[in-house]
Amino acid sequence: MEYLPSALENLIDKFESLPSIGRKTAQRLAFFMISLSDEEAMAFADAITDAKENVEFCAVCLNLTDKEICVVCRDERRDSSTICVVPDPKGLVAIERSHEYSGRYHVLHGVISPTNNISPDDIKIKELIARVSDGSVEEVIMATNPDTEGETTARYISRLLHPFGVKVTRLAYGVPVGGNIEFVDDVTLMRALEGRMEM
Amino acid sequence: MEYLPSALENLIDKFESLPSIGRKTAQRLAFFMISLSDEEAMAFADAITDAKENVEFCAVCLNLTDKEICVVCRDERRDSSTICVVPDPKGLVAIERSHEYSGRYHVLHGVISPTNNISPDDIKIKELIARVSDGSVEEVIMATNPDTEGETTARYISRLLHPFGVKVTRLAYGVPVGGNIEFVDDVTLMRALEGRMEM
Repeated sequence: MEYLPSALENLIDKFESLPSIGRKTAQRLAFFMISLSDEEAMAFADAITDAKENVEFCAVCLNLTDKEICVVCRDERRDSSTICVVPDPKGLVAIERSHEYSGRYHVLHGVISPTNNISPDDIKIKELIARVSDGSVEEVIMATNPDTEGETTARYISRLLHPFGVKVTRLAYGVPVGGNIEFVDDVTLMRALEGRMEM
Repeated sequence: MEYLPSALENLIDKFESLPSIGRKTAQRLAFFMISLSDEEAMAFADAITDAKENVEFCAVCLNLTDKEICVVCRDERRDSSTICVVPDPKGLVAIERSHEYSGRYHVLHGVISPTNNISPDDIKIKELIARVSDGSVEEVIMATNPDTEGETTARYISRLLHPFGVKVTRLAYGVPVGGNIEFVDDVTLMRALEGRMEM
């Protein structure tokens, strides 16, 4: 589209490089961006550089933080004998939203995926083993996604943790609350039946 | 979500402020952004500031450009006696894609919309009248969107142009090529019948 200025084309390309953003949306976002005031546009650009410069991995659990240790790990009231293993910071946010969990976390930053060429060494498993090896951890809850890769990752880590004698659990499978049985897939229903509980 | 660093929260908020981006997508985009290399993230921020600094309105047609006059207006081969009036630069891009038009453009940067408090003075109508008033324009094609506001804007401009004796036309209404009659709405079908052509 040579009839657009190259700086605008470049911005459209950048937006299009983001996940789940197609050409049309990228165009709309770029046009919107240049329709902003100078201050607003600069604030956006600054937000990117700020986040990039100031956000780091927590030295303990590898959650995202702007301090050396993240807010969860800094919170003394949290039970440090339980570690919930999540695939990424979004997983941590999801678990926190349930207001049900008061232990610590460990963020893997990925899952084992042979198809995507991600081996156990590419995610933060070593760091988890190191945390567990000091003996203060009693339970590790696997909260990887309920898919093949999440499952594989959970089993792999579970096997590595076995020698340390910690209890390894994982999130229950079952029908989603508020869902309709009719629309629940077969495998989930099978798991829900397997895991049925007395009332 | 206090368990995310504030710089990251800020970036999520910024993404969420973009059109058609919800909270979940904003989170995904922000997480993606900090997963980029420093260079890539900086290049993104720079693309915003570059576009904002270098993209301006063409002095003639108000299309976006990084020069004083846009590529369309600079192109001597284009017929300057015909002006196609589009609501925004996206409209211009759409018309150009048809490869059917070789005249000039005029970008209104909006449409008259009482509900959104946009009056004729808020869009680039005066500039269009000024271009037509020099006498070299023979036809003005209204290519506003086929909705109430687009229609209102086209009629308003058409009335203003009447004293100058230029021919004012508008895009034909009809069934979209490749579409299915079954799914075409009643009003479009009515317009398509009204505008039927001999074969």
